[in-house]
Amino acid sequence: MRDTAIIGVGLHPFGKYPEKGLRDLSRVAIWEAIKDAGISAKNIQVVYVGNALGGLITGQEAVRGQVILEDCGLGGRPVVNTENACGTGLAAVRGAWLEVASGMYDVALAVGVEKMFIPHNTAKSIRALATCSEIELSRSGFQYVTYYAMRLRAYMEQYGATLTDLANVVVKNSYNGSINPYAHRRTAFTAEEVLNSRMVADPLTLYMCPAMADGAGAAIICSMDMAKKLTSRLPVKIDCCTFRAAKFSPHGEYDDPHTFTLCAQEAYEKAGIGPEDLDVAEVADAAIPMELILYERLLFCGKGEGPKLIRDGTTRIDGSLPVNTSGGFGIRGHPLGATGLAEIAEVVWQLRGEAGPRQVANPKVAMVHDSGGVVGYDTAACYVSIFSK
Amino acid sequence: MRDTAIIGVGLHPFGKYPEKGLRDLSRVAIWEAIKDAGISAKNIQVVYVGNALGGLITGQEAVRGQVILEDCGLGGRPVVNTENACGTGLAAVRGAWLEVASGMYDVALAVGVEKMFIPHNTAKSIRALATCSEIELSRSGFQYVTYYAMRLRAYMEQYGATLTDLANVVVKNSYNGSINPYAHRRTAFTAEEVLNSRMVADPLTLYMCPAMADGAGAAIICSMDMAKKLTSRLPVKIDCCTFRAAKFSPHGEYDDPHTFTLCAQEAYEKAGIGPEDLDVAEVADAAIPMELILYERLLFCGKGEGPKLIRDGTTRIDGSLPVNTSGGFGIRGHPLGATGLAEIAEVVWQLRGEAGPRQVANPKVAMVHDSGGVVGYDTAACYVSIFSK
Repeated sequence: MRDTAIIGVGLHPFGKYPEKGLRDLSRVAIWEAIKDAGISAKNIQVVYVGNALGGLITGQEAVRGQVILEDCGLGGRPVVNTENACGTGLAAVRGAWLEVASGMYDVALAVGVEKMFIPHNTAKSIRALATCSEIELSRSGFQYVTYYAMRLRAYMEQYGATLTDLANVVVKNSYNGSINPYAHRRTAFTAEEVLNSRMVADPLTLYMCPAMADGAGAAIICSMDMAKKLTSRLPVKIDCCTFRAAKFSPHGEYDDPHTFTLCAQEAYEKAGIGPEDLDVAEVADAAIPMELILYERLLFCGKGEGPKLIRDGTTRIDGSLPVNTSGGFGIRGHPLGATGLAEIAEVVWQLRGEAGPRQVANPKVAMVHDSGGVVGYDTAACYVSIFSK
Repeated sequence: MRDTAIIGVGLHPFGKYPEKGLRDLSRVAIWEAIKDAGISAKNIQVVYVGNALGGLITGQEAVRGQVILEDCGLGGRPVVNTENACGTGLAAVRGAWLEVASGMYDVALAVGVEKMFIPHNTAKSIRALATCSEIELSRSGFQYVTYYAMRLRAYMEQYGATLTDLANVVVKNSYNGSINPYAHRRTAFTAEEVLNSRMVADPLTLYMCPAMADGAGAAIICSMDMAKKLTSRLPVKIDCCTFRAAKFSPHGEYDDPHTFTLCAQEAYEKAGIGPEDLDVAEVADAAIPMELILYERLLFCGKGEGPKLIRDGTTRIDGSLPVNTSGGFGIRGHPLGATGLAEIAEVVWQLRGEAGPRQVANPKVAMVHDSGGVVGYDTAACYVSIFSK
C-alpha cells in the first residue's frame, strides 16, 4: 500500500433542511472540497458515496451516488455506493482510500450525505435507524437511546460516574458546537440546563441525546506523490484506516477487550504511535455522555477514568487531548453518511491550523473514530483512522 | 496487485419466494459457497454484501449485510454494504476482489441478494427500480422497458434485425434456462410463442422482458497462494475486474465507442486476450433481445452483426461462443444484487466442467458483463471481468 493524503474537505452545514434533497446538500459539500483542494474536478477519477437511509427517507435507493454526481456536473466517473449505518461516512472514506492506496486510482472523492429530518414524522426517521428491522420494529421495540441509557447506568454503578459528569460532556461539546458554523446545535448549555431538560431514557435527558440533522460532507483523497503535483495545499497524511466488527458473544457489550479497543490498538500499531501521541480526536458519541466510555475504549485513559478526563478538562479545546472539537455527533449533528466526513473535515482543519476559534494548539496527530450498527450488543462496523501532518 | 481466484460459489434458486426474507435467501447461497470451496467458515476474513433495493422492498436498509451474516452464523467479520443497481452483484465482487488483490485480506466472501417480487404490488418493485426517483417518478414516467424498446426499434431500423431475431434470443436463452435448476423461468419457448405473447412496449413482447425474481448468490475470493493452501478445488483465476461509467453527453446512448465497449477493451487488455479467446460469456440482457446489441458492444462481432450470431448459432451452448448459458437476466432471473453472483457461478461451473447439461466444450476463458443504472442515456456502472483456468 502506498502513502495517501487528504487534500481537500468540504461540508454542507448540518441542520434541518426539509426543502433540500440529497443532491442539494451534496453539491455544496463536493464543490467546497474541490475548491479547498485547489484542484480541477477533472482530476477526480473515482467516487465513493456513503448514504445509509436514502431509500427509506427519500425513496431513492439504487445508484443514488450517480444521481448526485450527475447533478453536480461530475458524472461519468465510476461511483461506488456504500453504507454501514452510523459508520457510513468512514465506509466511503475507507473505500476511496483503498482505491488510492492499492494503486487502482490516483485521486478519489469520498462523499457522505444523509437526510434524517422528516417534518412531523420523527417516527419514520427512528424506524429507518433500526439495526434489524424485523426484530426491532416488530418484536423488541429496542431503540438506540435505550441501549445507551442502559450502558451509561451500568457505567455509573460500576465506576461512580455522576449525573454531573454526564452533563459536563454536553457542556464541553455544546460549547464547541456554539463556535462551529457547521454545527446543528449552536447553543452552549450549562450543566443545570442539561440536567433540567426533559428525561428521555434515564439517565439520558433531552440535551444528552442527538437531534435529527441533515447534512453532507466530502473529502478528496490522493496518493502522496500526486498530492505534491496537484496542489500547494498541505497534504494531511492518512496513516491508517482500520475497520473491525464485533465478534458475537452471549455476553456481548461487556466482553473485554471491546471491538473499539481492538480497532484502536490496530490503528496505533499501524500508525506507529500510542494514544499519548494524539493531539486531537473526533469520536462517535451517538448519545453525548457515551464519550466518557469511549475515552476508555479508545485507550485515552484506563478503566473507570473517563469522568476524570472531563473533570480535569483534558478533553476541552485547551486541554492536552481535545475530543470532539466540532461538537461531536450529538451537537454538530449526526446525519449518518455525512458524519464521518464532518469528523475528517474537523481534524483536517485542526492539523492545518484552520479551525478558527476551535483551534487546538499546534496538533500533529489526529484520530477519527466512527462506528455503526449494533449486532449482538456490540458494534457492527467500527472504523478508526489516524491522520498526521 | 496480486493474483486472485474464486474457490467457491453458491446460489439460492431464483424465483418468487414471498415467504422468504433477505436472510433466508442469503443463508442458502453463503453456505453453498462455503461447502463448494471446501473451506471452514473461519477462513473468511471480510465480507461484501450487495443489495440494491432492500430499503424500499423490505424496510431494512442500514447494516443489512451484518444482519444477514449474523443470521448465518458468520457475524463478527468486517462487512461492507454496497450497491450499484443492476450491477450490484459485481460491485460486491469487485470490492471483495480489491481487498484480496491489494493484500488487505487473504479470503473474502462476496454476497448478492435481492427481494424483487411483492405479491399484488409489482408497481412498488418498478418504482424501486427508478434511476433518479425525483425525475422519473414525478416527471417523465420513464421505465427501463421503454428505454430498451426504443433502443431495439432503432437497431432494427439501422441494421435490419427482424422480430424473429429478437424472438430467437429468447428461444436460445429459454432453452438454457429450461436445463438450469437455478433459473426462474424453466420453459423453453418457441419463436412463435415469444412473438405471440402480449405486447409490452413495441417491439418487446412479454416473453422478451424479465420477470421479477428473488434470489441470492455468493462467491469466495482468495489470493492464489491461499487458494492452493485452503482447498483442493480448482481455483478459477480472476484475470481482471474492470469498472467504468458513461461520460455524460447530450447525444448519450449513440455515442461511439459505448461505455460497455471501453470497459470490455480495458478488460481484454488487462487479461492479455482478445474477444476471439473467449469460450463462454454471461452478459446483462435486462431485456432479452438486448443481447444482440451487447454482442457488438462487447466486441464479439462487428457493428450490425449481432443478428448473424443468433442466426448461425454461434452463441448457443454448442456454438463457438456460448452466451448466457445460465439463461441470462431475463430467463434465469434478475434479482439485482444476486445477478452478478449468478453470472459468476455459471462461468465458474463452466470452467470447472460442472455445468451439467449446459456444459460448454472445454472452456478455458470466460467473461462476465454486468451493468447498472442509466445516467444520461448510458450506463451508470459497467463491470466486465475475465476469468480463466
